[in-house]
Amino acid sequence: MYLPLDPKTGPLFRQIEQQLREQIEEGRYPPGARLPSTRQLAEELGVSRITVKNAYAELESDGLIGPREGSGTYVLPPCCLCEAGTEDEAGQTWPLWQVEALAQNPPPPTERPPLGDGHPAPVDFTGAGDPRLFPAREFMQTMAAVIRHDGAEVLGYGPLQQQCPSLRHTIAQMLTNNGILCTEDEILLTTGSQQALALVCHALLKRGDAVLVEDPSYNFALALFRTLGLKLIGVPVDAEGMCVELIEPLLQKHRPRLIYTMPNFQNPTGACLSGERRRQLLALADRYNIPILEDDYAGDLRYEGRAQPAIKRLDPGGRVIYVGSFSKMLMPGLRVGYLLAEGPIRGILARHKRVTDLATSPLILRALEHFMSIGRYQAHLRRAGRAYGKRRDALLAAIRRHLPASVRIEAPQGGLFAWLQLPAGIDAEALLDQARRSGVLFAPGSRFFIEPAKGLRFIRLNFATRTPDEIDLGIARLAQALKASQP
Amino acid sequence: MYLPLDPKTGPLFRQIEQQLREQIEEGRYPPGARLPSTRQLAEELGVSRITVKNAYAELESDGLIGPREGSGTYVLPPCCLCEAGTEDEAGQTWPLWQVEALAQNPPPPTERPPLGDGHPAPVDFTGAGDPRLFPAREFMQTMAAVIRHDGAEVLGYGPLQQQCPSLRHTIAQMLTNNGILCTEDEILLTTGSQQALALVCHALLKRGDAVLVEDPSYNFALALFRTLGLKLIGVPVDAEGMCVELIEPLLQKHRPRLIYTMPNFQNPTGACLSGERRRQLLALADRYNIPILEDDYAGDLRYEGRAQPAIKRLDPGGRVIYVGSFSKMLMPGLRVGYLLAEGPIRGILARHKRVTDLATSPLILRALEHFMSIGRYQAHLRRAGRAYGKRRDALLAAIRRHLPASVRIEAPQGGLFAWLQLPAGIDAEALLDQARRSGVLFAPGSRFFIEPAKGLRFIRLNFATRTPDEIDLGIARLAQALKASQP
Repeated sequence: MYLPLDPKTGPLFRQIEQQLREQIEEGRYPPGARLPSTRQLAEELGVSRITVKNAYAELESDGLIGPREGSGTYVLPPCCLCEAGTEDEAGQTWPLWQVEALAQNPPPPTERPPLGDGHPAPVDFTGAGDPRLFPAREFMQTMAAVIRHDGAEVLGYGPLQQQCPSLRHTIAQMLTNNGILCTEDEILLTTGSQQALALVCHALLKRGDAVLVEDPSYNFALALFRTLGLKLIGVPVDAEGMCVELIEPLLQKHRPRLIYTMPNFQNPTGACLSGERRRQLLALADRYNIPILEDDYAGDLRYEGRAQPAIKRLDPGGRVIYVGSFSKMLMPGLRVGYLLAEGPIRGILARHKRVTDLATSPLILRALEHFMSIGRYQAHLRRAGRAYGKRRDALLAAIRRHLPASVRIEAPQGGLFAWLQLPAGIDAEALLDQARRSGVLFAPGSRFFIEPAKGLRFIRLNFATRTPDEIDLGIARLAQALKASQP
Repeated sequence: MYLPLDPKTGPLFRQIEQQLREQIEEGRYPPGARLPSTRQLAEELGVSRITVKNAYAELESDGLIGPREGSGTYVLPPCCLCEAGTEDEAGQTWPLWQVEALAQNPPPPTERPPLGDGHPAPVDFTGAGDPRLFPAREFMQTMAAVIRHDGAEVLGYGPLQQQCPSLRHTIAQMLTNNGILCTEDEILLTTGSQQALALVCHALLKRGDAVLVEDPSYNFALALFRTLGLKLIGVPVDAEGMCVELIEPLLQKHRPRLIYTMPNFQNPTGACLSGERRRQLLALADRYNIPILEDDYAGDLRYEGRAQPAIKRLDPGGRVIYVGSFSKMLMPGLRVGYLLAEGPIRGILARHKRVTDLATSPLILRALEHFMSIGRYQAHLRRAGRAYGKRRDALLAAIRRHLPASVRIEAPQGGLFAWLQLPAGIDAEALLDQARRSGVLFAPGSRFFIEPAKGLRFIRLNFATRTPDEIDLGIARLAQALKASQP
């Protein structure tokens, strides 16, 4: 073959590569065509063999040519396109398995479009925890101390079989002090409590199984259950939490494989499950052989009233899987939660944890353990609890000051959330559009119900993320928006 | 009722509580018995009503007594025990659902018992990456800088819909420089590459589905597939990687729903998939409508030879899900990996990520992005690559020096692992017991095969975790152990 080469216009192997590439792309060397051997072409072109080898290697790594064992180098066919495919809006075609995956995983409702300019910076009553209260610098110091003390080992995987025994021991002591007697071996560390929920689902449930949930409930728990193709069976919530006296017929009819409950400061309603109902729920779960998943995401953030015993505390053994987290009580960004389980399920959940993400960062775990052992966690909890309590009071005062009496609210005894019922005729989704323009954000109730329409008259406010002044401003703006949306 | 009280022996409400507790436990107040009202008892005992209320509250929070709407306070039945249960070795009874869970999730083989004393500190050829090379302090400085610059916000959840766009942008650029053209929107950040594998399984597969894997393969991928109840279809591996020319009959017979492959420095064999086989595999996956999960866990750790194009690079679009990680190339403790996917599956995987653990720590993500943008990651990669390359050479030299020629090894061109075939008649499991006594640890081949027995003549050595001197010592000890195990 003839290839004009000019040493002055750049490296020879590039010139050979480019000219061969053109000839292949123009079809002068069709798929299957055999190229001359490197020795042969080197002689023809009067260049060294290594030059030709480099040119061939470039073309090969681009998938244009390839060797066939012992029989030289050939032009390869372009990668065939999938026949059975699907076109998306952009006209792009996807393989059939992607269509099938989409059918198995229908997309959720789309988010709101961003607002244009010219609107006040919103007072945001969504989100979780106030970064202004995070002990970020103290935690950084603690991480630095851990690296100085433990060395870079803590940036490895750590022991996969037994993650951070010292932190598990500290957590077990904390729970035991709250009357939940347990040992470090019964504690499994997770990437936030969300992973604990996911592990329980992966270990115990399969597509199509039914789960009994409070209705309304935590939106990301609902999203998890929906994403895994589980059937949601809802139980109403009143001022005393889940209406347990209503569930027996549901257990008989739907045979749920799991009961998911937030007995303390239920998200979104803020309700606490009465002691009597806790015992009824445990007895029913026991009778119908259904595990209880107890999500105590903010149990230590109590501002008034007396704590009821955790359902886990009443568990004679292995009935309740208890889940806790440091996201709300310390900082979400640590991504550390835990679950407490006894019996065969404990080891099963531990295996699911390992295969799901191997381990949670030993650096974060060790730092958290140190943070707790020197009392900084407890100090933060007291400080945050006082601040959040004041903010709750500020919210209740602002609501009395700015909102009509037709807006109903149960004062939450703790946690982060207040649940408002709007006057008849107000639609929370429409109110949110109005509120965004007025400069205040909240979570519309529809996000928390199995049937979103049930939530149209409710909104959830996270009072913990805002200062009293911000709260007063935000509620004043909410009042505006409410007026503007009156029918 | 009469309760003897003595103000000198402690708070009155405690005395009332303790005496009532005894009477209930002795059965003098059986379950269902009605207690006197607080007013009534206060009068009888001549104490304030609040004192009695406090006593009742303590008993209630211990689950001994409870109110019934509008009708006073009653003694509660003890929490009933589950009838249908199972006893474990300790004689403890568990609910039936735990037995069922155990049946669905059979336990894996148990670990080796720890050695007694009197053995040399082992040279450990297991594990991943050498902490002595981790840039731990530099990364701490980077995290501190991120907190100074971004504030405590980075210890929140961050935006769940769009995690750390700047890091995804940096990763997309890195991949594009390697010929894998992509944008940040196609990158999903994960808690290590293990989570990426798990997300793909949760989104695409269900219990009983078949997965085509290299045999041997990465032990934690096999553990994941087994834990999720998937059927493993193995393909032999030779010096050119997965024997792709053997898979078509397997695709026809077992109709796998996923092909999992490590084309670069395959774990455990260290083999690299030839360019020709990469193209064949893609064409076959395309023809049979099967997604390819390409795990490039250590693609940038190459010490010699020319890189073949990633399968993803040859993908016309949406056929291949590409997975990368910073665990092997930087530090496992960051728990950051990523996947690259186009088409409908991208959004599905993003939703599974959110419901699985909401988010990966924004602090770690931002710090990693900063670490890369100032070139520290690339510098570490060069430094680690040079060190690991030297260690590979040291391993090959030590093997020549100490081991009999009957031990066969293919020199790996990169990665962390060397795969040794033992002389006929040597059992790797027995050798490991001997080796532990001689002071050297390795991963026996049985961990990596679908049928563990197939691995009895193989062992995997991680040469990257040990210095040349440690390697020479370790291989000398391995030679001892080998002699001691000769039949």
